[in-house]
Amino acid sequence: MLGLTPYAPWLGILGLIVAYLIYAYVKKQPNGNQTMQDLEEMIHDGAMAFLKKEYTYLAVFVAAVFIILAAGVAWQTAVAFVTGACCSIAAGLMGMTSATRGNSRTAEAANKKGQAAALNVSYFSGAVMGLSVASLGLVGVGFWFWIFGENVTTAQYINGFAMGASSIALFARVGGGIYTKAADVGADLVGKVEAGIPEDDPRNPGVIADNVGDNVGDIAGMGADIFESYVGSIIATIAIGATMVLQQGQENLRMSYMALPLLVVMGGLLSSFVGVFSIQALKSINPASALRYTTFVAAIIFIILTYNTISLLGLPIGIFWAILSGLLVGIAIGLLAEYYTSGPPVKKIASQSETGPATVVISGLAVGMESTYLPVLGICTAIFIAYNTAGIYGIGIAAVGMLATVGATMTVDAYGPIADNAGGISEMAGLGPETRKITDSLDALGNTTAAIGKGFAIGSAALTALALFVAYTQASGLKTIDITDPLVVIGVFLGGIIPMLAAALTMTSVGKAAFEMVEEIRRQFREIPGLLEGKEGVKPDSTTCVSIATASAIKEMILPGLIAVLSPVVVAIFLGKQALGGMLLGATVMGVFLALFMANGGGAWDNAKKYIEAGNFGGKGSSNHKAAVVGDTVGDPFKDTSGPSMNILIKLMSVVSLVIAPLLLHWVGLLRW
Amino acid sequence: MLGLTPYAPWLGILGLIVAYLIYAYVKKQPNGNQTMQDLEEMIHDGAMAFLKKEYTYLAVFVAAVFIILAAGVAWQTAVAFVTGACCSIAAGLMGMTSATRGNSRTAEAANKKGQAAALNVSYFSGAVMGLSVASLGLVGVGFWFWIFGENVTTAQYINGFAMGASSIALFARVGGGIYTKAADVGADLVGKVEAGIPEDDPRNPGVIADNVGDNVGDIAGMGADIFESYVGSIIATIAIGATMVLQQGQENLRMSYMALPLLVVMGGLLSSFVGVFSIQALKSINPASALRYTTFVAAIIFIILTYNTISLLGLPIGIFWAILSGLLVGIAIGLLAEYYTSGPPVKKIASQSETGPATVVISGLAVGMESTYLPVLGICTAIFIAYNTAGIYGIGIAAVGMLATVGATMTVDAYGPIADNAGGISEMAGLGPETRKITDSLDALGNTTAAIGKGFAIGSAALTALALFVAYTQASGLKTIDITDPLVVIGVFLGGIIPMLAAALTMTSVGKAAFEMVEEIRRQFREIPGLLEGKEGVKPDSTTCVSIATASAIKEMILPGLIAVLSPVVVAIFLGKQALGGMLLGATVMGVFLALFMANGGGAWDNAKKYIEAGNFGGKGSSNHKAAVVGDTVGDPFKDTSGPSMNILIKLMSVVSLVIAPLLLHWVGLLRW
Repeated sequence: MLGLTPYAPWLGILGLIVAYLIYAYVKKQPNGNQTMQDLEEMIHDGAMAFLKKEYTYLAVFVAAVFIILAAGVAWQTAVAFVTGACCSIAAGLMGMTSATRGNSRTAEAANKKGQAAALNVSYFSGAVMGLSVASLGLVGVGFWFWIFGENVTTAQYINGFAMGASSIALFARVGGGIYTKAADVGADLVGKVEAGIPEDDPRNPGVIADNVGDNVGDIAGMGADIFESYVGSIIATIAIGATMVLQQGQENLRMSYMALPLLVVMGGLLSSFVGVFSIQALKSINPASALRYTTFVAAIIFIILTYNTISLLGLPIGIFWAILSGLLVGIAIGLLAEYYTSGPPVKKIASQSETGPATVVISGLAVGMESTYLPVLGICTAIFIAYNTAGIYGIGIAAVGMLATVGATMTVDAYGPIADNAGGISEMAGLGPETRKITDSLDALGNTTAAIGKGFAIGSAALTALALFVAYTQASGLKTIDITDPLVVIGVFLGGIIPMLAAALTMTSVGKAAFEMVEEIRRQFREIPGLLEGKEGVKPDSTTCVSIATASAIKEMILPGLIAVLSPVVVAIFLGKQALGGMLLGATVMGVFLALFMANGGGAWDNAKKYIEAGNFGGKGSSNHKAAVVGDTVGDPFKDTSGPSMNILIKLMSVVSLVIAPLLLHWVGLLRW
Repeated sequence: MLGLTPYAPWLGILGLIVAYLIYAYVKKQPNGNQTMQDLEEMIHDGAMAFLKKEYTYLAVFVAAVFIILAAGVAWQTAVAFVTGACCSIAAGLMGMTSATRGNSRTAEAANKKGQAAALNVSYFSGAVMGLSVASLGLVGVGFWFWIFGENVTTAQYINGFAMGASSIALFARVGGGIYTKAADVGADLVGKVEAGIPEDDPRNPGVIADNVGDNVGDIAGMGADIFESYVGSIIATIAIGATMVLQQGQENLRMSYMALPLLVVMGGLLSSFVGVFSIQALKSINPASALRYTTFVAAIIFIILTYNTISLLGLPIGIFWAILSGLLVGIAIGLLAEYYTSGPPVKKIASQSETGPATVVISGLAVGMESTYLPVLGICTAIFIAYNTAGIYGIGIAAVGMLATVGATMTVDAYGPIADNAGGISEMAGLGPETRKITDSLDALGNTTAAIGKGFAIGSAALTALALFVAYTQASGLKTIDITDPLVVIGVFLGGIIPMLAAALTMTSVGKAAFEMVEEIRRQFREIPGLLEGKEGVKPDSTTCVSIATASAIKEMILPGLIAVLSPVVVAIFLGKQALGGMLLGATVMGVFLALFMANGGGAWDNAKKYIEAGNFGGKGSSNHKAAVVGDTVGDPFKDTSGPSMNILIKLMSVVSLVIAPLLLHWVGLLRW
């Protein structure tokens, strides 16, 4: 079995080829009439313009960190860092290309061939993202494991790859999250509220930016997030395997421990292939079940492969139970997110609209807070089982287990925004109510999968951050991190500050960026004659809106990004590595709670509004609906900007600490006296 | 110096006598015309009815815990527990009696003699509360120290006193918080919004309940909170002194370490006497400065007394710096709370009303989140200085330093709601605009002192909880609590759950209780003929409103209370004492952040609304004002129910752990395998 690890990058390349073939298949589908093709082009160009500008800024950041790492840590780490950043960027580009090509084709399929065909196109467009994330991760980690993995000391260079992936992810999530909500709020506020034109109306200059935002936030942002968890969990587990204390006579198993995460995800990718293509057999049943079953198919095959791998390597079977606990808790957290964002709590929030917006907001906040405890108990259960069946190694491998079938699960996540955009395009191109009905049904399904995906992203981020934390403590030579030491307590408090501050900053940023969008859309309606009246041939200047959203998103992502990267370094220097350990735990705990609170609260408000729009409590246009819209608007930055940023934040802080850990081995902190 | 400790309870009794004399002075003041006397009687009766009902329920709880403690821990602890509960109840009763007698007399003084006289009456009414809290604490802790303090092993029985104080405090804060907001929201919603009658209008059946609520929440609740911090910090420091490891040849200093917190607060009470009576000399300058200067006078005298005490005892002078750091950080956190709830952030929130309620809510949430980091840095600074100047003992004594002059600071806190109620009475009794102007100015001043008081309460709760945490680790024989142990990590996560859940529960409770109030007020307007029209002789049935608010507040306080008391016990049993240590830290960190977030966010919304009402951004009645009212309503349970509950929660969990610590000395937890 051990001899299989050098094939990891090759399997990754095979995955990329499969992804490319799927992309070619999607691209071959008809993309409709001229209007649809134009819209596709505009969304594609807008998305690429955002990515290009974002990556230009990131190039400077990557170069600076490369130099710092090469000078301060090791040149090998620095090189791995750059490749991690590049792989994350590549995954984003591939996913976005496929998504922006898939939306018009989904609309066309819905228009000409019906629901099953439309589901097929959007699902496979998403599969390009899912398989790219998994394959690029395998290529990168597999390659570096092949180069550095043979030796316990050189294995630490692989950590640079995870830091590269994390850095890009933070900026992609924060920048993308700000972009998408600024565009969404801006377009809605001026279009729907002020000008009184419908959603996705082609006269609205902000609509293209809004559609671009769905891709930027939900495809590139979510992809970078999951890519980071995937890579981070594998690398953390390799690092734990390389440094953990083994029982006497077990030293010969160390290479197996180190190789296992790689072998597990290789099995995960193979299972994902089967899962993804099983849609062909499943699509005749109802779409909701079909999507869900693809991930179950992947999970079952994965479980069988994993059990055999562990047996063949001669590792304790407890490890299997750790992996299984991670997998199951990941699913459980996803389903809990679905419960809180579309179950009874949503109706409770909707009913509060009877007494106005304030009670809608209060009950949504309460639902968000309440929604934290079951997922956190789930995370605690996973930790408990993993630790008791496989020791400290179990924490890492459980995270890997949660993420191994990402090729299949991420496909379903990426499907959502594609279906959403297809709906937008069919509205703007005037494809008629029948088509819109199909795309709406696909979109509704996408909202459910998005909620599950968000829950899963939080759960995997939590376990990955903990795995990285364990790897950090071992790599920095900490036997204990003692919270009866007040400096560690200070570290925990300081750790709690970072997510709170990042949440405050990103929420404020959305407001600022949205305000600039509002001004620009108002200006266009005022200054472009005939635009609002829908005069033939008069088109809005969508490009300017896209650039404004891009510029302000990128400006606003810098401060939270720098805080996340620098704060662990500052704490290590002034308070020492024990306090840094405390900080990582404080940030992880606070980050997980805030992520759940914001994602679930935001999702619940969104669906409470939709529940009223479906005709309950007075329906659309009633004062109850207005109250629910307030909740939904508050929830927008919660669920799509600040909440998701938490996932990355906690992983990035942990991975930065892991990378600098070798420097901290004999370190006590400047101010520690 | 050591010989002075037996005088502690006598000094406390002296303090009670002074408080009684002040009360007699207040009572002697004229309480106005028949309407005012009737109103005073109704508010007084309502408040006492609430307390009576609350204490009836608590008697059952206290009896049950007494039996459990006597059987499970020690009968001495159980007896101390009951006395702690009784002292907390006594402090609440004294404060409420004085406050409810003081409000009509303040109104009358404002009516007949002007601002200086009204300030005088309301300030001295508050002083009864301030001095009662400090004196009762000294009586209780001093008595038990006299009985058990001579011996290191018997000293642990004193912990029961703190647990008694904490238990009552939780129910008083949660129940009081729910009561006050349910009454407030209910009265406003039906009165101001639906019936269109002004605030504090005597026709509104909910107005008396609202006024009772101010006393129940802000006097009894705040008093119990501070009493708990005061008692908790002293007892934690005694416990740390009793159990900490001393350097060789320093064992003779142990009694000094144990006695010091008592001696420090004795100095604090003496300083508070001077501070309180200095108002007589200061009242000719402007009221805002006068109030502030009384606390400065107390602080300066306290610093001088403390320095000499430490010198005379032959203890290291580093302890003095620890005390000073606690005192200064307490003031700093209070001032930061003032900044966030009345400085530039308030104007920022008000400006967001231009784009509707959603942006008001978003910016308020962002301000609340942002407002956490400076106070937390302050707490970290206090920990850092205290630890580096006086070791682990420093954490405890810094908390004592922050709280020692509570006689003076709590007087200012209690002044606020008295001034507020005086305003309500002068409105209801129709004392005219001149009087109302004076009471309004006193009320505005009270809002500022309330913000500072809330910040101070959070800061002192944080330091007290940490001191109790340190005492717990020592008493349970934990040399280290290691966060590289996954069970401790689970403990930290579980600790985070409790404040989140308590916040969710209490916010929901306010909604439920307010809803019942709304129904009742609507019923009265509907069924009592001539009430809404203001027909001569037709009076609302205020008593029923008071009972409804009382019943629902008491029903809703039970679940959060039980969670707080039982969760540490459950975690100790199933996961062991290390995990319990992790839990306490997790709960403290999460609790402090949520307390700051909610208190400051809520305060900022409140003042943003008032800023608009003062004529900015369109003024009262504009759509901007409506948007700001939504923020204010969301902020109500934030700042007056859920936020303040956090303070008690974290202290109560720590003190329960400290009390059961002796049982855990050789304990590893049922499920730890």
